[in-house]
Amino acid sequence: MLRVAICGGSGYTGCELLRLLSNHPGVTVTAVTSEKSAGKSISDLFPYLYRYSNLIYEQLKVNDILDRADLFFMALPHGRSQEAVDFLFKHGEKVIDLSADYRLRDVRIYEEWYKVPHKFQTTLKKAVYGLPELYRKKIAKANLIANPGCYPTGAILGLYPATKNKLIAVDSIVIDSKSGTSGAGRKSDIKFSYCEVNEGFKAYAVASHRHTPEIEQELSVIAGKDIKINFTPHLAPFDRGILTTIYARLTKNISMEKIIDVYKKSYSNEPFVQVLDDGGSPNVKNVRGTNMCEVGLTINMRTDTLIIVTAIDNLMKGASGQAVHNMNIMMGFDEKTALDTIAMFP
Amino acid sequence: MLRVAICGGSGYTGCELLRLLSNHPGVTVTAVTSEKSAGKSISDLFPYLYRYSNLIYEQLKVNDILDRADLFFMALPHGRSQEAVDFLFKHGEKVIDLSADYRLRDVRIYEEWYKVPHKFQTTLKKAVYGLPELYRKKIAKANLIANPGCYPTGAILGLYPATKNKLIAVDSIVIDSKSGTSGAGRKSDIKFSYCEVNEGFKAYAVASHRHTPEIEQELSVIAGKDIKINFTPHLAPFDRGILTTIYARLTKNISMEKIIDVYKKSYSNEPFVQVLDDGGSPNVKNVRGTNMCEVGLTINMRTDTLIIVTAIDNLMKGASGQAVHNMNIMMGFDEKTALDTIAMFP
Amino acid sequence: MLRVAICGGSGYTGCELLRLLSNHPGVTVTAVTSEKSAGKSISDLFPYLYRYSNLIYEQLKVNDILDRADLFFMALPHGRSQEAVDFLFKHGEKVIDLSADYRLRDVRIYEEWYKVPHKFQTTLKKAVYGLPELYRKKIAKANLIANPGCYPTGAILGLYPATKNKLIAVDSIVIDSKSGTSGAGRKSDIKFSYCEVNEGFKAYAVASHRHTPEIEQELSVIAGKDIKINFTPHLAPFDRGILTTIYARLTKNISMEKIIDVYKKSYSNEPFVQVLDDGGSPNVKNVRGTNMCEVGLTINMRTDTLIIVTAIDNLMKGASGQAVHNMNIMMGFDEKTALDTIAMFP
Amino acid sequence: MLRVAICGGSGYTGCELLRLLSNHPGVTVTAVTSEKSAGKSISDLFPYLYRYSNLIYEQLKVNDILDRADLFFMALPHGRSQEAVDFLFKHGEKVIDLSADYRLRDVRIYEEWYKVPHKFQTTLKKAVYGLPELYRKKIAKANLIANPGCYPTGAILGLYPATKNKLIAVDSIVIDSKSGTSGAGRKSDIKFSYCEVNEGFKAYAVASHRHTPEIEQELSVIAGKDIKINFTPHLAPFDRGILTTIYARLTKNISMEKIIDVYKKSYSNEPFVQVLDDGGSPNVKNVRGTNMCEVGLTINMRTDTLIIVTAIDNLMKGASGQAVHNMNIMMGFDEKTALDTIAMFP
Repeated sequence: MLRVAICGGSGYTGCELLRLLSNHPGVTVTAVTSEKSAGKSISDLFPYLYRYSNLIYEQLKVNDILDRADLFFMALPHGRSQEAVDFLFKHGEKVIDLSADYRLRDVRIYEEWYKVPHKFQTTLKKAVYGLPELYRKKIAKANLIANPGCYPTGAILGLYPATKNKLIAVDSIVIDSKSGTSGAGRKSDIKFSYCEVNEGFKAYAVASHRHTPEIEQELSVIAGKDIKINFTPHLAPFDRGILTTIYARLTKNISMEKIIDVYKKSYSNEPFVQVLDDGGSPNVKNVRGTNMCEVGLTINMRTDTLIIVTAIDNLMKGASGQAVHNMNIMMGFDEKTALDTIAMFP
Repeated sequence: MLRVAICGGSGYTGCELLRLLSNHPGVTVTAVTSEKSAGKSISDLFPYLYRYSNLIYEQLKVNDILDRADLFFMALPHGRSQEAVDFLFKHGEKVIDLSADYRLRDVRIYEEWYKVPHKFQTTLKKAVYGLPELYRKKIAKANLIANPGCYPTGAILGLYPATKNKLIAVDSIVIDSKSGTSGAGRKSDIKFSYCEVNEGFKAYAVASHRHTPEIEQELSVIAGKDIKINFTPHLAPFDRGILTTIYARLTKNISMEKIIDVYKKSYSNEPFVQVLDDGGSPNVKNVRGTNMCEVGLTINMRTDTLIIVTAIDNLMKGASGQAVHNMNIMMGFDEKTALDTIAMFP
Repeated sequence: MLRVAICGGSGYTGCELLRLLSNHPGVTVTAVTSEKSAGKSISDLFPYLYRYSNLIYEQLKVNDILDRADLFFMALPHGRSQEAVDFLFKHGEKVIDLSADYRLRDVRIYEEWYKVPHKFQTTLKKAVYGLPELYRKKIAKANLIANPGCYPTGAILGLYPATKNKLIAVDSIVIDSKSGTSGAGRKSDIKFSYCEVNEGFKAYAVASHRHTPEIEQELSVIAGKDIKINFTPHLAPFDRGILTTIYARLTKNISMEKIIDVYKKSYSNEPFVQVLDDGGSPNVKNVRGTNMCEVGLTINMRTDTLIIVTAIDNLMKGASGQAVHNMNIMMGFDEKTALDTIAMFP
Repeated sequence: MLRVAICGGSGYTGCELLRLLSNHPGVTVTAVTSEKSAGKSISDLFPYLYRYSNLIYEQLKVNDILDRADLFFMALPHGRSQEAVDFLFKHGEKVIDLSADYRLRDVRIYEEWYKVPHKFQTTLKKAVYGLPELYRKKIAKANLIANPGCYPTGAILGLYPATKNKLIAVDSIVIDSKSGTSGAGRKSDIKFSYCEVNEGFKAYAVASHRHTPEIEQELSVIAGKDIKINFTPHLAPFDRGILTTIYARLTKNISMEKIIDVYKKSYSNEPFVQVLDDGGSPNVKNVRGTNMCEVGLTINMRTDTLIIVTAIDNLMKGASGQAVHNMNIMMGFDEKTALDTIAMFP
């Protein structure tokens, strides 16, 4: 039985980890931390997690939990994760960090976008970007996983086959994402109160969202050259899901049939990417509660543009589901363990 | 008292016209048609329109209503509007057509996208595209207004100042729109049933939506050359509103301050366009129930791209509100009559 | 021009007052207070209220605003309103208090349910309960109006004709109310964040909600004897509206026709109560943005029970709309001024 | 491997059965019928059910599927289920009928409320009402299960301990239920279109809903005497869930502690009923996607009334989840197989 700790277990990604791990036959959760809720049981705070009535939130003291778990999910805020991750990693623990702290390989870019210094650059170099479709082999051997951001997951999976096969002009990429409100996290903030979000729709952080350099980093690796993108996130009135609509100019004449074939081949062995047939329409409702990424493809022949639409559940493939997938790969479990579910529809 | 008839008065745009006209001091509604609901009173069908308890839906027989109204709002389905509009127009009536039948000046483009022949090309030539911000003077003298589509309204108003002032490369335009579900009309269709739409989000008619040529037509006029665009509509889980996010490469170095200034000057006399200050974020919730178009501007300096966001209420500025605005201009009413309202928030 | 001040103008009821008064030809808003937002303009805080760009929120100092307005809307929290109301009232001003501080005539009941002492009992005795359907004549002469609570408005209007005409056993009343989330006010509270409320539904304050004694007070006056009720409010995932379902045993055999007739007669001169015909179904969506109360009636012949359903907009008839109605009555305006609108549907 | 067929597999309850059974290690789905979608594969119609790409909807011909399954879930409309159920039952098959056709033991009551004759009264007598908390032992031996209605499940589980222990006056029961829109089924009907339901809330079938006699039947059995109830269902703007608020006069003085104890003891061995502690608040969001029924209890000491609130997922405990629970009991599987999940929150 793999003993697992969750640091930062009272937010939506922490709760989602608890939900998923309760169905994982090879795992037992031995510790959960929460600064705000230390001393309370999980089921006191979240009655629907009644199975965890014996597990008490504790203060995050990495030294105290070091010996109580074999693998650590870190669901702390950006900046706050750095030190704890470094400590656990240096003590030989396996760590999956859901924060952004170990995602950007270039420390200057991290510091520019996140406005905090990175104090653990040696550890940073050991981190593997935890997108299994790109880095499965490295993940299998890694001790430190930087779990991808929600927006980057949908964007990179949408662009990977076209970029790798040089089908698109990489200086023309526009990424327009629409996220459910759980992406903002579980917090008291009037901006995310029901009456402000409901029946509303808006863009935010236009041309300035912190996931921009993360997307650019991975696309640049795939393309083998530096890429700058346009990325606009939007806040949408639903709980879960990110729909990402991507535009890029085609570099050559290519048929729909051929492009779908390229995508299907790229993802033929992937359990969590589903390339739809021509006419298929990704919908966040189709992937709700699952670790699946739906990919839809259209060519605009009037403008020679490829339009890619992806749908993921931001708390699953965009966070906790992908984290469990990474754990499964690291620990030698079947990749689909605890993730092999059908969407709850409606 | 201007006598007004509404042909096609049992859909959402027809009902919205009834709501607006009930507050118009210079107008009386004398006839309303509906094929499905002929014989019923308006308030039988829509209890909340209790003020119209004496008005009975009738079959559309243009000859019968010809003398009973001075101005006709036509809210019929595309293709079905052509003949009735032609008949009324030829009999010297003033007509505001909310369908797409008289919007596209090039009949071949109409027939290509709408898959029906246009039988009234002489009348088509007399139609004025009813976007007051572009055609106010022509509207004032017109007898036949082609009321703009909902998506084109938000897209064109967002692009007009930048295109006219040659600030953007017009071959690089991406228009990504998100519409509330009322845009689909009032109908029995499982695709628009509550449980399919709620908690979902998807693109539809990717690269093939009929509003594409309408947007291209007006942008081409503004730019003085042929423009092709990428346009993707999305179906969103809220009742009203369209948020449109537009991307275009800048043709020159320009500051945010300067570009906001260009936009504010372009719309300085417009009662229904509100250009937000730097950092302002258009939201469909801010314009709900109003005829206002919010415009927000951002420059992505890393990619030399202008990002424009517009928010309208699809049933108001995107349909019935704009139709009443056109009527006010045509008939010499104060432009804001019956439209001078503040958004209902929340 | 009546000069009006709003004390507590940055919550949902304050904003709704601003929306309504912008359409009132006889009123000008001269001062607005907000402790949190003092110094900001209204349109800084709420871009959609762009018409109020010249009005600056100020700290509440009653002495400062005493001479700047002729009538004061008090939208302060319960307990906090007492002193300011007393001060203004004693200085001869007209006051409409939207808090609960002057609603309960028995000071012991107030103190028991609101857990604060009432320090202004002399002023309390002068307050008139501002439900126009019951107290129109007193309101016309009053200087201090205690504007009714949202739940009591829907409950009392539903029960008034049956209670007055002794059609029901007043010891058997069950009132089950469902409120939109705007009823909780505009605040940062995780309980009212989007992801907690959306797709959820729950009862709260079961058998202990503070509106209970307010409903009992008014029903007891109507019945001429002490009444205790069961009242359960519920939090519902929509912005606006309260649907109240009321159950009471019939005291006599009576037909649907007759009971509808009793209700229609009771409210025959009321501009803001609409008694539906047999089979009619009140819906919060039918009254959204309006000051209307829809009333539907059903007799369960198998249990000799009258079931009354009412629908109101909690921010309108349940708060700010009713406050403006009271102002219209007090100041001799036509009662429907600024309130004569049709619901925004959908 | 138990071979299972689903008759009526293209509605929400049919899809929910497919979702649940995909996680059941002891079951394989061998046939699915749908009149409207015969010939299509399940995943053609529902892309999110991609695992069922090899299963083709077929016309319902009971003779054809008789030998292809060992147990039949019948998710046909009321009235349409009668004959097929009778045929399968008489051929010795195990049948779980999700329609209402075999729920009411008194055929006259069935015919009065459902307006169709019951032609299979001999078979009707063999049916067991499939509420495991009341009839577990009978279910284990039964060949024909009448799966309870969604509203009756929440109402009966809420009232069972109080009724059985004679704590309440059974002639005073008021049951006020609020259902998510999936309860209306998957169909094209303007009443259930997004823009009509969203931001709305209404009662329907007041004092006339067909689940009334079903609730009365079971409560009468528990009480040992004839009971008539008041039952009002409401249509709520969320996908899944029923919250039921129940009022009944207490027959004796009893403390909260004691009454909670009675309830906890009644359900101490039940895997799918969770009695909350004092102050706990059932919420449909807490049970979404699960087979759990949350029960909350409050005493109104001012009116000597017990107020019981229950929350279920109408598609799970209210339909397909309970059907799978019944199957598990009938076939000797562990009761929680395929149902042992945590709610998806948010």
